[in-house]
Amino acid sequence: MRLRHKPWAADYIKEHEGLMVLEPFEQKGNWQTLFERAQPIGLEIGTGKGQFVANMAKQHPEMNFIGIEKAESIVVTAIQKVKEVEASNVHLVHENAEDLRDMFAENEVDTIFLNFSDPWPKTRHEKRRLTYKSFLEQYENVLKDGGKIVLKTDNRGLFEYSLTSFSQYGMKLEDVSLDLHALEDESNVMTEYEEKFSSKGQPIYRCIATFQ
Amino acid sequence: MRLRHKPWAADYIKEHEGLMVLEPFEQKGNWQTLFERAQPIGLEIGTGKGQFVANMAKQHPEMNFIGIEKAESIVVTAIQKVKEVEASNVHLVHENAEDLRDMFAENEVDTIFLNFSDPWPKTRHEKRRLTYKSFLEQYENVLKDGGKIVLKTDNRGLFEYSLTSFSQYGMKLEDVSLDLHALEDESNVMTEYEEKFSSKGQPIYRCIATFQ
Repeated sequence: MRLRHKPWAADYIKEHEGLMVLEPFEQKGNWQTLFERAQPIGLEIGTGKGQFVANMAKQHPEMNFIGIEKAESIVVTAIQKVKEVEASNVHLVHENAEDLRDMFAENEVDTIFLNFSDPWPKTRHEKRRLTYKSFLEQYENVLKDGGKIVLKTDNRGLFEYSLTSFSQYGMKLEDVSLDLHALEDESNVMTEYEEKFSSKGQPIYRCIATFQ
Repeated sequence: MRLRHKPWAADYIKEHEGLMVLEPFEQKGNWQTLFERAQPIGLEIGTGKGQFVANMAKQHPEMNFIGIEKAESIVVTAIQKVKEVEASNVHLVHENAEDLRDMFAENEVDTIFLNFSDPWPKTRHEKRRLTYKSFLEQYENVLKDGGKIVLKTDNRGLFEYSLTSFSQYGMKLEDVSLDLHALEDESNVMTEYEEKFSSKGQPIYRCIATFQ
């Protein structure tokens, strides 16, 4: 994703306190208090321009959503997207979440969404992939029992790696699709990237995995 | 696969006693005695025209191979293929193996190969798919501890189903490839069908799964 520097971004983020969670580490264990209703939390790691988390929030009023994005210049677009859909069940976090356990208590999250994460194709970068076992340890900790990870990507290597990594970790695959858009599943909420990529006819991979 | 009736097939099979195992159920627990050397057994279920099992035997003299095929008119082609490669570490079985436990003792097999099995795409035929849980129970029984299943297919639906079925059964995925031929793995032995299909540029899926 191209990052254009936006000198006004920091101020814009501060102006949206409420939608933005400015002190996310202080929120550990108390995320539900930020929302109107206490209901299952879906967490997107790497929210990007926010289309996914905004539309999911709109489509699923029975859930609360949190989107984490480390790039300041992109977070502002996500803020605009959430404002557009007028969803009150979503909060955004501008943070580089190196360890989710610093931000969330055990069992605090119901579902983790990983959408088109950086594939880090080189073997020496394996540890940076968001489905590497050290990340799975974090997810297992913050997810409630039976909580799930929903992963979407167009990257074959990352998908092959993730299926194996989930399985080796002891997770179970609930569902695997090697061409998500062939299913014509209208409940599928697309990211910006997914929309662009799949319109070229290239397959989107998705899997749902759970901790046992 | 087109089945052309070959009236001479039954006689041809009988003439090749030795290569063919005519009483496979009598062999239960004693398959190693048929081979020159006692070494790990690879079992292909649905051997078809035999190219895979013949070339695997040639490429892996450190293993013994058994190919099972229910269609008489196809078994004769497999016999010819094995004779061509002059491999002595392979035997063929003409049988509809409804329950492998009738033919193999516990722990008798090291690796099971499922190549381009019938996908049985309709939900009501799920139980016929060779990766349905009742088949996995059989495989678990006849495979030694840590034994593996190597599955190859061009059928997306069967592959998605099989990954989930393996995982739900408690097996672990060791390796997943969504485009086997992109790997340029020269040790990959192709079936006739695979050769034809992949030459059209279509992906071949493969996974390796183990019981825990």
